[in-house]
Amino acid sequence: MRESDLLRLIAERSADLTGVGPIVLGPGDDCAVVTLKGPTLLTVDQVVDGRHIDLAATTLDLVARKAVARSVSDIAAMAGAPVAALATGCLPEGWPHADSLFRHLAYWARSWRCPLVGGDIATGPGPLVLTVTVLGHAATPRGPVLRSGASVGDAVWATGAFGGSFSSGRHLTFEPRLGEAEWLAATLGPSLHAMIDVSDGLGRDAARIADRSDVRIEIEARSIPLHAGVADWRSGAGEGEDYELIFTAAADADLPERVPATGTTLTRIGEVVGGAGCFVRDGAALIDVSEMGWEHGR
Amino acid sequence: MRESDLLRLIAERSADLTGVGPIVLGPGDDCAVVTLKGPTLLTVDQVVDGRHIDLAATTLDLVARKAVARSVSDIAAMAGAPVAALATGCLPEGWPHADSLFRHLAYWARSWRCPLVGGDIATGPGPLVLTVTVLGHAATPRGPVLRSGASVGDAVWATGAFGGSFSSGRHLTFEPRLGEAEWLAATLGPSLHAMIDVSDGLGRDAARIADRSDVRIEIEARSIPLHAGVADWRSGAGEGEDYELIFTAAADADLPERVPATGTTLTRIGEVVGGAGCFVRDGAALIDVSEMGWEHGR
Repeated sequence: MRESDLLRLIAERSADLTGVGPIVLGPGDDCAVVTLKGPTLLTVDQVVDGRHIDLAATTLDLVARKAVARSVSDIAAMAGAPVAALATGCLPEGWPHADSLFRHLAYWARSWRCPLVGGDIATGPGPLVLTVTVLGHAATPRGPVLRSGASVGDAVWATGAFGGSFSSGRHLTFEPRLGEAEWLAATLGPSLHAMIDVSDGLGRDAARIADRSDVRIEIEARSIPLHAGVADWRSGAGEGEDYELIFTAAADADLPERVPATGTTLTRIGEVVGGAGCFVRDGAALIDVSEMGWEHGR
Repeated sequence: MRESDLLRLIAERSADLTGVGPIVLGPGDDCAVVTLKGPTLLTVDQVVDGRHIDLAATTLDLVARKAVARSVSDIAAMAGAPVAALATGCLPEGWPHADSLFRHLAYWARSWRCPLVGGDIATGPGPLVLTVTVLGHAATPRGPVLRSGASVGDAVWATGAFGGSFSSGRHLTFEPRLGEAEWLAATLGPSLHAMIDVSDGLGRDAARIADRSDVRIEIEARSIPLHAGVADWRSGAGEGEDYELIFTAAADADLPERVPATGTTLTRIGEVVGGAGCFVRDGAALIDVSEMGWEHGR
């Protein structure tokens, strides 16, 4: 199918988006038109065959799901609510699955409440490259939760558990922590200081909060929640693609063991101190984990 | 340079964006935060090495310029003003020019008033794939000019001239028609009915207005403005990547020969009639040009 025919098919399939909620105009014109109120969150992420997914061993549905979920997880990391999405695909020449792929992308985008309002398709001699841009807004009056708000004395918390994302397939099926982040922002309000989603590894991503907040994060090794079958904290903290949230909150903030609406566990894993970087305290040893994790572009 | 170091470098270079105009938070967090008012225009486009550009024969500056300009031209086609941009690059493995490329992308994005507030970098075994998302808003109270507003009896107009985009290098150096579109929307107001930018060819893109407006567009062959050296109207209408505007306006709308502020020519090339598709009247012949043009994804 030619690019223009495919784009028209995609636009026709989404014609019913026009006039729905904030979407003034869906796909099929030079631009989409969306009515956004207040500060708008913007993020874009890529999925590259051979790097983030193995197209030969993965259903198109899960490829599409991961491409959308990665960007939605960035919205969750700011305690945001998704509003609209755009997707591009640079497809291998002669690849016959473009229409099916975009149908799945549209499905997942709608399921996380950010309908696909635009995009682009090209072909090239390389592997499949997908990008998904998601727009959102803050889910609560707390506003967007940045990486830069951590303060000395804060407690450091994590949702869910870590490790084994690739062997378990969770890197394809993870649920972006939208509901958890919204609940945290609504419950803690201004006591929720900083947040990030863990794509590259617990240590590496916690270090990003430390870096932007000009503090040090210290994590207790035995506190790190691990998935069943994960050998030790080093495996759990080092693999990446967990898409759990790490957040810092005022030390006296009281949280239950689980987020009520979703059942996702909440674990206090460490504290914010003066200094720089992210360290794990393992018995008497203090190990720098700021660079421990997955380097997608290595 | 590793992906994470490069992203940090890019974020640091754009740190001064935070707090500028509508940009609440620039690159370096999970999302950028931008304050957008009223209906927001959204568009994304790709540039693929070997398809839209020849990386081996083009400076990085012009590669970056084209990647940004293609999306900015979509904003112009709606009579919009750009506000912010996001860029992704899937780079060939070991390619050493990523930082330079993103510096050029940031330069061009700023020059068209849509600073780069976020993005992503990955590497892959294929050619360079760039995407640029641009957000904007309507430049005038006329609001966004859609493809779907053409009415039977409208005059069809074009900015500038057509043809020879590749041989002349204009496909790399074209100026998106932001100022022209804004002037048209301000001058014609509700009499400006429909508009599109010509990326795939005059005939093919005019047919898109016809398709969305449920009308037929007829163009006079001898009226099509051609660049010097372009052999005939078929060459001019068929090559694509002109990035001129085609628009329809009420038949009694009076326009000067040139847009006053920019000097860009305005030429009445045809009319809107009942029916479907886009046809060129060449003497006694009426030729269907709805499919005449550049098929990027062919």
